[in-house]
Amino acid sequence: MNFREDPRPLILVTNDDGYDAPGIHHLVHALRGMGRIVEVAPDSPQSGKACSFTAHDRLHLRRVSDDGDLLFYTCSGTPVDCVKLSLHHIFRERRPDLIVSGINHGGNDSICVMYSGTLGAVLEGCIVGIPAIGFSLLEFNWNADFETAEEVVRTIVPQVLQKGMPRGTVLNVNVPYCKDLNGYKVCRQADGYWHKEYEDIDVENEEDLQFFTAGQYANREPEATDTDEYWLQKGYVTIVPCQVDITARHAMEGFKYLEQ
Amino acid sequence: MNFREDPRPLILVTNDDGYDAPGIHHLVHALRGMGRIVEVAPDSPQSGKACSFTAHDRLHLRRVSDDGDLLFYTCSGTPVDCVKLSLHHIFRERRPDLIVSGINHGGNDSICVMYSGTLGAVLEGCIVGIPAIGFSLLEFNWNADFETAEEVVRTIVPQVLQKGMPRGTVLNVNVPYCKDLNGYKVCRQADGYWHKEYEDIDVENEEDLQFFTAGQYANREPEATDTDEYWLQKGYVTIVPCQVDITARHAMEGFKYLEQ
Repeated sequence: MNFREDPRPLILVTNDDGYDAPGIHHLVHALRGMGRIVEVAPDSPQSGKACSFTAHDRLHLRRVSDDGDLLFYTCSGTPVDCVKLSLHHIFRERRPDLIVSGINHGGNDSICVMYSGTLGAVLEGCIVGIPAIGFSLLEFNWNADFETAEEVVRTIVPQVLQKGMPRGTVLNVNVPYCKDLNGYKVCRQADGYWHKEYEDIDVENEEDLQFFTAGQYANREPEATDTDEYWLQKGYVTIVPCQVDITARHAMEGFKYLEQ
Repeated sequence: MNFREDPRPLILVTNDDGYDAPGIHHLVHALRGMGRIVEVAPDSPQSGKACSFTAHDRLHLRRVSDDGDLLFYTCSGTPVDCVKLSLHHIFRERRPDLIVSGINHGGNDSICVMYSGTLGAVLEGCIVGIPAIGFSLLEFNWNADFETAEEVVRTIVPQVLQKGMPRGTVLNVNVPYCKDLNGYKVCRQADGYWHKEYEDIDVENEEDLQFFTAGQYANREPEATDTDEYWLQKGYVTIVPCQVDITARHAMEGFKYLEQ
């Protein structure tokens, strides 16, 4: 792993759907030729894992292959573990120039950014100061058509590699599931929530109530015209710059009554 | 669960260390008398689980006891699952007035807010529009002295129950581990990161590299005087108002070059 002498951009690729998901294969396919690619993907599905990491278990990192352009590992942990562990072990001598996560099977628009393992990896990049982009396609189907999403990767990544990102900022990119895009829009995360989140499997026995996760997304501000939800519905790729400082600065004054 | 006719404030209690952690017992002890308490705690440790939820497994909710003041369940999922599932099943007819999470064994200051299961539950409150507070004690010891932390809970919760919170805002409260507090401070989340994050268990066999999680926190801005890190070191309880909109608004203009 003599990355130090490699003149190419060094790109870490990960995801949350796991190493065998079509989405990550399409991501690697789209990135080929843009740099030295190091894929470190979870060895099992990690959807909904957010920024979680493995606190009390042994973590395994397994080198699978290397063809000179793509060095490929699997990791037993979460997407955040993939990033942390590869920085610890694989990128000791040279940090990656960019982290790319995805392409997620399903959107990570609005507040999904808080639950998403795909975005967990991206936000870890934000914490350690490495430019990072999450790509998600608004279609859950395992056999979805990723052609448009690949085109979006090929459009955005070279520009970001060239111009970089302000420190403390990363990108959440969502791609609508349609053949013809209407454009690319930088916008803010919409305010929304999930409801009807469970199927009741057994709610008779109070000593062992059982449920299965379901859920529907609801947009709290369908009238707003500056959100990712709005632009995705119009057929635009949405680009939301994200940060990890979640301090609600506007509310600080209002809580001063708690000071002593 | 006829909460609708109960005149008392309805308080949901959860944590990430699990139902048997001393921290949650101390939290419930401190809250006794302030309302009808419903504890829904994970049945296993969930440290570092962030905002993750259980996407593809059956979830179990088990009613353990009810003494009229405290109704107690365990849940097989993450802290976010505890909140979501209790809203779905236990609080169908009346939503809680407040969610309280903790008392965490160990601090959740600075960027730990992004990894913490304790704060995951709190941020879920933020998403669904229920006031929420996370309490964390800066001491990992299972047998730590929680007396001061209990005092902090008894100081903050009644004020918040009375005054409420602006929608879209929740609180991350950290308590320094000392006998005599110097005060309470509303402040912002410090910019920091973790490093030296792993012990190498086996790094000889590339086909199965093994690691164990460790780590040290580093503050990127030790000179700043408005951060939680600064005030915790001065012996203050820190109160950081948090939100789930992570859009980096200051950076939006700078990414406009990506628009088409």
